[in-house]
Amino acid sequence: MRVLGIDPGLRNLGWGVIEISGSRLSHVANGIIRSGEGAMGMRLLALYRGLRTVIAEHAPDAAAIEETFVNKDGAGSLKLGQARGIALLVPAEAGLPVGEYAPNRIKKAVVGVGHADKAQVAHMVRLQLPGVRLAGADAADALAVAICHAHYRQSAARMAGGAA
Amino acid sequence: MRVLGIDPGLRNLGWGVIEISGSRLSHVANGIIRSGEGAMGMRLLALYRGLRTVIAEHAPDAAAIEETFVNKDGAGSLKLGQARGIALLVPAEAGLPVGEYAPNRIKKAVVGVGHADKAQVAHMVRLQLPGVRLAGADAADALAVAICHAHYRQSAARMAGGAA
Repeated sequence: MRVLGIDPGLRNLGWGVIEISGSRLSHVANGIIRSGEGAMGMRLLALYRGLRTVIAEHAPDAAAIEETFVNKDGAGSLKLGQARGIALLVPAEAGLPVGEYAPNRIKKAVVGVGHADKAQVAHMVRLQLPGVRLAGADAADALAVAICHAHYRQSAARMAGGAA
Repeated sequence: MRVLGIDPGLRNLGWGVIEISGSRLSHVANGIIRSGEGAMGMRLLALYRGLRTVIAEHAPDAAAIEETFVNKDGAGSLKLGQARGIALLVPAEAGLPVGEYAPNRIKKAVVGVGHADKAQVAHMVRLQLPGVRLAGADAADALAVAICHAHYRQSAARMAGGAA
């Protein structure tokens, strides 16, 4: 199956698609959708159209998205929420199930510890997806979400197998 | 011309369409789109589809939306941002210009003072749109945004006329 990982930023929306075959992961594609400098509606439309194109081109079976870290910055959370709304809408419109993972779960799944920096995440993404060329840090984060989803799926499958 | 006003909540998204003929305003339609209780993606999809249907049925020429009040509640701002992202996306996708107005500007335009409560806003909306039947408080707020947009358009037109 194919999983689309999304790192939902307003300025740069990172995405990455991986293929899961049993316990083997392989890279399909990754990139960054930029919303540009226009009015907010036009920026969100750019994210919406870009993400629809990614799903149409790479036909994922599921999507995974990072749970957004919220803080006391209401204006920042609002902007991030707008981008995140698009990142949740487009997979739903395409009929894809969407997994949500907290940042420290993603790091733990990819790096092995919950407190890794961006460079460590990118490094481990490269190790786990041989030959990948990363479009940028946001694309690496998106691939990390997809890898996390694959790990949780496999754990769930093992547990289901053990219980059967 | 027709203006679609939007009050963008996640649970209840209020909308209202008015017709502007010179300085005369009349009511076209108003309602509330409810996002239900499902996963966030499905809730946003319900708002997206509902708002697209409103635009398809009532063919507005412009949209107006309340600027969202942000506070220290990051999680609340994030949720509201997700709904607001949809409320900005759909008019942009339909090619409509979108005006944004702060809550106190809307109240001042509709009630005459910047600090009015919801009941006063609904009362003045009823006075200014004779015969209107309000679908609820969120729909009244949405009509108030549309009325505010009409007032600002007329002021802008008068100023342009005076300068010519």
